[in-house]
Amino acid sequence: MLKAQYTERGPVPESSIEALSWDKPALSSGQVLIEVLAAPINPSDVLTLTGEYGMLPPLPAVGGNEGVGRVVELAEGLKGPAIGQTVLLPVGCGTWSSHVVAAAKELIPLPNDADPQQLAMMTVNPPTASLMLSEFVDLKAGDWVIQNAANSGVGGYLIQLAKLRGFKTVNVVRRDSAVAAVEAEGADVVLVDGDDLRQRMLEATGGEAPRLGIDAVGGAATDRLASCLGEGAVLVNYGAMSREPCQVAPLNLVFKDIQLKGFWLARWFQQASPEQKMKVFGEVAALIAAGKLHARVAATYGLSEIKQAVAAAAAGEREGKVLVVPAAGT
Amino acid sequence: MLKAQYTERGPVPESSIEALSWDKPALSSGQVLIEVLAAPINPSDVLTLTGEYGMLPPLPAVGGNEGVGRVVELAEGLKGPAIGQTVLLPVGCGTWSSHVVAAAKELIPLPNDADPQQLAMMTVNPPTASLMLSEFVDLKAGDWVIQNAANSGVGGYLIQLAKLRGFKTVNVVRRDSAVAAVEAEGADVVLVDGDDLRQRMLEATGGEAPRLGIDAVGGAATDRLASCLGEGAVLVNYGAMSREPCQVAPLNLVFKDIQLKGFWLARWFQQASPEQKMKVFGEVAALIAAGKLHARVAATYGLSEIKQAVAAAAAGEREGKVLVVPAAGT
Repeated sequence: MLKAQYTERGPVPESSIEALSWDKPALSSGQVLIEVLAAPINPSDVLTLTGEYGMLPPLPAVGGNEGVGRVVELAEGLKGPAIGQTVLLPVGCGTWSSHVVAAAKELIPLPNDADPQQLAMMTVNPPTASLMLSEFVDLKAGDWVIQNAANSGVGGYLIQLAKLRGFKTVNVVRRDSAVAAVEAEGADVVLVDGDDLRQRMLEATGGEAPRLGIDAVGGAATDRLASCLGEGAVLVNYGAMSREPCQVAPLNLVFKDIQLKGFWLARWFQQASPEQKMKVFGEVAALIAAGKLHARVAATYGLSEIKQAVAAAAAGEREGKVLVVPAAGT
Repeated sequence: MLKAQYTERGPVPESSIEALSWDKPALSSGQVLIEVLAAPINPSDVLTLTGEYGMLPPLPAVGGNEGVGRVVELAEGLKGPAIGQTVLLPVGCGTWSSHVVAAAKELIPLPNDADPQQLAMMTVNPPTASLMLSEFVDLKAGDWVIQNAANSGVGGYLIQLAKLRGFKTVNVVRRDSAVAAVEAEGADVVLVDGDDLRQRMLEATGGEAPRLGIDAVGGAATDRLASCLGEGAVLVNYGAMSREPCQVAPLNLVFKDIQLKGFWLARWFQQASPEQKMKVFGEVAALIAAGKLHARVAATYGLSEIKQAVAAAAAGEREGKVLVVPAAGT
C-alpha cells in the first residue's frame, strides 16, 4: 500500500511530496477499506502544496481532496456496502493513496458501470461550475455568459452545464491552440484574449453584453472580462492562473456598476443545507454517470510518479486534468 | 456677465475652457435670474473636462455641476422666491458662471445666513459620503469603517458623518503631511498607506477588521484596503486618484469573500425615489447650515482665472476644495 505524503510547503509544489508505503490497518467498528481507483490533481491541491490555499491541513499530510474507489474489505459485523461497490471518497481524506480507510456511513455509492476516472472529478470542479451559474445572477434560457480560462476543468464543465440549461457561452482562452478543444466541449463562441475583446464578443453575440462573467485568470484579464459585461453585471473570480491580483477599472465599477465577487466551493459547502448539497451533487453525479458531463484527462500517473504528476498538474498549457490512478503504478 | 465655457475635451482639463462674456437674457415665464455666489470644482468636473466621466454634456458646455446663488430678478408675474434669497442651483446647469437662469420651481431655498461656500458643496460630495455609509453594509454604532483618500472632500465629509452616526473611522492617506488635517476632521485613526497597513490598523482598532471599506485611489491601494477588511466585507470604489485599475487579490475575493462594488451618485439619483432624495439632501443641508458638516476650502478663484482654478483642482496634494467665486473676479 502506498500514499503520497508531504512534510513541507513551498513554492515548488512537488518538492516534498513522495510515495511512502504503509501497512494495511486493522479496521475499527463501522470502517471500510477502499481501493482508490482514481483521484485528480486540482489547482486547489497545487495551492495546498505551495501553502497558498485558504485551508491547509496539518503536516505531514496525504495529498488529494477527491476521488473514487472500490470497497475491498468491511469491518467485522458490517453488512454493506457490497465488496466491489464503487464509492465516492470522503472529501479531504487524502485521496492520493492506493487505499483509504473510511466510515461506511460516510460513503456515497456510485454506479459501478460508469467511468471511475470521470466520477473521480465530480466533487470539486462540476459543483463549482454549476453554482457559479446559479448563485450570482438569475440567468434565463438564451442568456449569454462569458468566462476566461475556458480550457480548464471548471471551464469545460461550465460550457456543458450552461448548454444543458439553455445558456450561451463566450469562452476566452489565452492561445490559438486551445480553441478547437473548447469548441468541442460545446462552446457557442471561443475568442483568444486580447485588447479588442469586447468588440469581437459583441460581433459574435449580435451586440449582447453578458450579465455574468467568470474569471479564473486575474490581472488585466479580469478587466477585459469586466469591459465585456453589461451594466449592472456580476463578475465572479474563482482562481488566479496569472498569479496577479484581479484588476477592474473604476469606470467599470462606478459608471457600469459591475460587481466583483469571489466564489469558493468550500465556503458554500459550509453554509449550504444538506438539501442544497444533495441537489447539486446529485445533479452532477447523474450527468457524469450518464455521460452527459465529462472532463478531458491529460495524463494519468501512478503513485510512485507523484512528483511528476504534481509537476504536470502545476504546469500551464495542459489539455485536460491530471489524475492519480494508483493501480497504474503500484 | 461671464461664463466658463469649453469647446473640446482632452488630457489637459483646462486647455479649452475660458471665461466668455454673455448678455443678460430676457427671462421667460416662470424663470429667475440668479447671481452665482460659489461653485466648487469637483474631481467629476475635471473628468468631464478630460472626457473620462460617465456622462458628458454636448459641446460647447459651461463647466460646473453644483453651486449656490442669490436671486436677483424674477420673470414678470412671479411672486417668489424673494429677491436676495439664497438658493441651490439646479444640478448640472453649468454653475461656473456669474449668473444662471433657472425655472423658479427648480430652486431649493437655503438659509441666507449660512456660509454660501459651504452650501455650494452640498449636492455632490456629502450625499456620496452619506450613501456609501448606508447603502452597502448595515453598520451599527461602534462599528469601524476604513477609507483611503481620507484627505479628499468626500473623505472629510465621511469622517464627520460617520462620527455623527457613532461609527469609528480608519483613515488612510498617502503622505505624512496630510495626517494632522485629517485628524482635525474628527478621524479616530489616521494611517499613512503602506504594505503593513493591516497590521498597523489592527493595532489601532484593537484587532477589529472593518466590514466596509471605501476606496477612491485604485491600483494596489485598493488591495491594501481589501487586506484590512474582515471576512464577507464590502469594498466600495468611487474614484481613481492613482489613475490605475483597482486591484484585489483573488485570495481576498475567494477565501475572504470580499466584494468590490462601485458607487456613482448619478446612478443613485436616477434610481432613488423623491422621498429618498429629500431625506439625504435634507440631512446634509441641515448639517451644513448648522455648521456641523463642513469642508476645507483650499482656494477661491474668479471666473477670469478659470484655467488656473481647474489646474489647481486637477493637481494632487491640495488641502481642501477649489471653488469658483464669481464675485471675486468679475
